[in-house]
Amino acid sequence: MTGAGARRPRVYLAGPEVFHPQAAALGRAKAALAAEFGLEGLFPLDEAVCGDGLTPGQHGLAIYRADIAMMDRCDAIVANLTPFRGPHADPGTAFELGYMRAQGKPCLAYSAAPGALADRVAPGADDPTRDAEGYAIEDFAMADNLMLAGAVFDADGGAIEAPPSASGDDPFWDFRALRASLARAAAILADRPRGP
Amino acid sequence: MTGAGARRPRVYLAGPEVFHPQAAALGRAKAALAAEFGLEGLFPLDEAVCGDGLTPGQHGLAIYRADIAMMDRCDAIVANLTPFRGPHADPGTAFELGYMRAQGKPCLAYSAAPGALADRVAPGADDPTRDAEGYAIEDFAMADNLMLAGAVFDADGGAIEAPPSASGDDPFWDFRALRASLARAAAILADRPRGP
Repeated sequence: MTGAGARRPRVYLAGPEVFHPQAAALGRAKAALAAEFGLEGLFPLDEAVCGDGLTPGQHGLAIYRADIAMMDRCDAIVANLTPFRGPHADPGTAFELGYMRAQGKPCLAYSAAPGALADRVAPGADDPTRDAEGYAIEDFAMADNLMLAGAVFDADGGAIEAPPSASGDDPFWDFRALRASLARAAAILADRPRGP
Repeated sequence: MTGAGARRPRVYLAGPEVFHPQAAALGRAKAALAAEFGLEGLFPLDEAVCGDGLTPGQHGLAIYRADIAMMDRCDAIVANLTPFRGPHADPGTAFELGYMRAQGKPCLAYSAAPGALADRVAPGADDPTRDAEGYAIEDFAMADNLMLAGAVFDADGGAIEAPPSASGDDPFWDFRALRASLARAAAILADRPRGP
């Protein structure tokens, strides 16, 4: 503990792990890793919101509200931008990064996929700068859409962390880049004042 | 003009059209449609930021900052969540929805794809609630990830607008749902105070 606050800094552990078959175990493992860096890691596990007696839409909304409330309690976000169902980050995680960025909170992010977005989107036959459907392939040497990489840089001067090479195993159990983000979060948050 | 302000309400026309082969024409058409509803539509066209003398990373960051500044000048967001390179919305657009939501601004959204996310993600062979890679398929009768649909509902009580059936043509030129979102934005913004 430091003079900056009586509690550990809280980080919101955003990412598509909530959809993973081992979601709960991943949440516990990520929170345990955060603790190694002196951080309290909060994991938005959908199952924490009971859907009994709710319509599917009401249940989804209750989870949304619980996640928003959790973000509002956190001092920073550590967002997993590993590609999900395609070459891009999960849009729920991207939403959360924007939500925290607008609040002026530190925005850390990482991906298990090394390299730039442009390395992951195959070009079409006619034009190397466009994909097979004709959509431009962003080529700013960034890991994903420039709004995500830009937010991380403008918040803290950092980049989206990534390992030097892809792991052969499940990317969501590859904690190398997460570890780098947590170290950075701990350093940034150490001297910041914290709310209750 | 109303007593609420001397200028028209400004809406940020977010969406992956910035990557479309007809990006500039789409931006003009969307802004023209916004004007029909008494709104000033701002379109985040990347090309407005000159990259001369910048590294790719610096250029991407300059576009990010220009888009942030444009959002900060807007009274609301009208986000195109049409699936992009997969079953989900573009993560840049999702980021922008979160950014505006955190500011308490009205969040309108639409998609050219009718139906729920669960209708677009194919289940794997073993479990109808999970995709082929084992990731849970959100089934909350929402058009995409619950953070996106939840934000739109909590901001304005609305849903992600969609047409009754898919168009056979390019989805980005299908303005049916956009029209519904603009009408809703105009109604919500009519009596709100506006900044300079």
